[in-house]
Amino acid sequence: MRYSYTMISKTQIKNIKLLHQKKYRESEGVFIAEGPKIVNDLLNSKFKVREVFATKEFKVQGSSLRIHEVTEKELIQLSALATPNQVIASFETEDVMPDVRILKMELVLALDDIRDPGNLGTIIRIADWFGIRHILCSESSVDVYNPKVIQATMGSIARVNVYYADLDTVLKEFNTVYAAVLDGDNIYSQKLSKQGVVLIGNESKGVSEKLMKCVNRRISIPNFSAGAESLNAAVAVAVICSEFKRREKA
Amino acid sequence: MRYSYTMISKTQIKNIKLLHQKKYRESEGVFIAEGPKIVNDLLNSKFKVREVFATKEFKVQGSSLRIHEVTEKELIQLSALATPNQVIASFETEDVMPDVRILKMELVLALDDIRDPGNLGTIIRIADWFGIRHILCSESSVDVYNPKVIQATMGSIARVNVYYADLDTVLKEFNTVYAAVLDGDNIYSQKLSKQGVVLIGNESKGVSEKLMKCVNRRISIPNFSAGAESLNAAVAVAVICSEFKRREKA
Repeated sequence: MRYSYTMISKTQIKNIKLLHQKKYRESEGVFIAEGPKIVNDLLNSKFKVREVFATKEFKVQGSSLRIHEVTEKELIQLSALATPNQVIASFETEDVMPDVRILKMELVLALDDIRDPGNLGTIIRIADWFGIRHILCSESSVDVYNPKVIQATMGSIARVNVYYADLDTVLKEFNTVYAAVLDGDNIYSQKLSKQGVVLIGNESKGVSEKLMKCVNRRISIPNFSAGAESLNAAVAVAVICSEFKRREKA
Repeated sequence: MRYSYTMISKTQIKNIKLLHQKKYRESEGVFIAEGPKIVNDLLNSKFKVREVFATKEFKVQGSSLRIHEVTEKELIQLSALATPNQVIASFETEDVMPDVRILKMELVLALDDIRDPGNLGTIIRIADWFGIRHILCSESSVDVYNPKVIQATMGSIARVNVYYADLDTVLKEFNTVYAAVLDGDNIYSQKLSKQGVVLIGNESKGVSEKLMKCVNRRISIPNFSAGAESLNAAVAVAVICSEFKRREKA
């Protein structure tokens, strides 16, 4: 179910390129995603599609869809990537946080000021793998709709809900707030609950002092080396999620 | 113990910049590292320093050292980074693989065709954290002395030994060869040995068929989601290293 080839207009190209910038994504309530895997994952998700621009190679999975066919050259013009891949599509953003009572029934991640787009995208991908469905981000964290974040999720953005909130207010509603710190209790030997929030700090500064006041369980990944000072934030999230979840499958 | 300021010559700048390229690193047997943390870690390691170029801000830790003082502008000329940070130094490469009998006494990682510099650097950092001292790389893997790899190790390159080898030959010497695959045994419930090799595959293709013939333990990180198809290679390494090591500290 494809459009026959129609010239893409300069205005269309300009409008998609504006979405590379946060202020236009926010004013339009729209973001872009690229590549067949990620676009197909999003087409089969809660996100509402706006427009799809694709070369002849692109195969849409599932439901029929109107597609603007573009040339390779046009795709390069639209793309935020160094090597565009078959398709770029725009979707409406989603950010209505559910009632905290819903979140309290699950294990949720909270990110305090994560700044690197690759880290946020990778964390979303990790959450997806480990069946974590909700991530709370401090307002200062990198924009989840940044194309670099979307691409790094490898499609997991279609399945994991990300909300921006004043963490100081929201965390107070939870009974159990874990924080990943360097001098906490050995995560391997702790009892870990199936509900609660796991708070992850900024890449260089860790969890802010203000938010530490909401924390009642300080946990650490033991260090087996004299020299290593830290783990990358996404790597720490992976080990922590694995520890919370393995007890269900061991 | 510093050099008084001496003009850095055009030849010196050119020679350092050539080390951004693999062929010059190989012909010279020299690589570069940047930033106070990484350079200080390397200065206190097995690696022999060649030259250090630093701005006035740089504080060398430990042993005295002759430093070429450079201006911010000169540092930018030398650097492989978008934002240079105080110091750039050159070191002699090290790649003599110890006898396999030494390696067989420990838990070792083997990387089959890892291509992304950030992934290799992050894997070295993870290995360091978990006390893994040796990494074997297939000849086709990205060069460990690539500046992007060195920077991503955050100094762990000073403590983890990385060797390039024909994995097909070397792996045959080991009694236990684990491979991370998508349909292996649940790693959470396996007995895992303290010696052996853990083989990690290429970012998109996984472990090559040829090397799978050397494998006698296929392990997987359970997937808790219907949609997630994979984990990033470095993330998988982190979860696997954590599983091998936690039994020592739990």
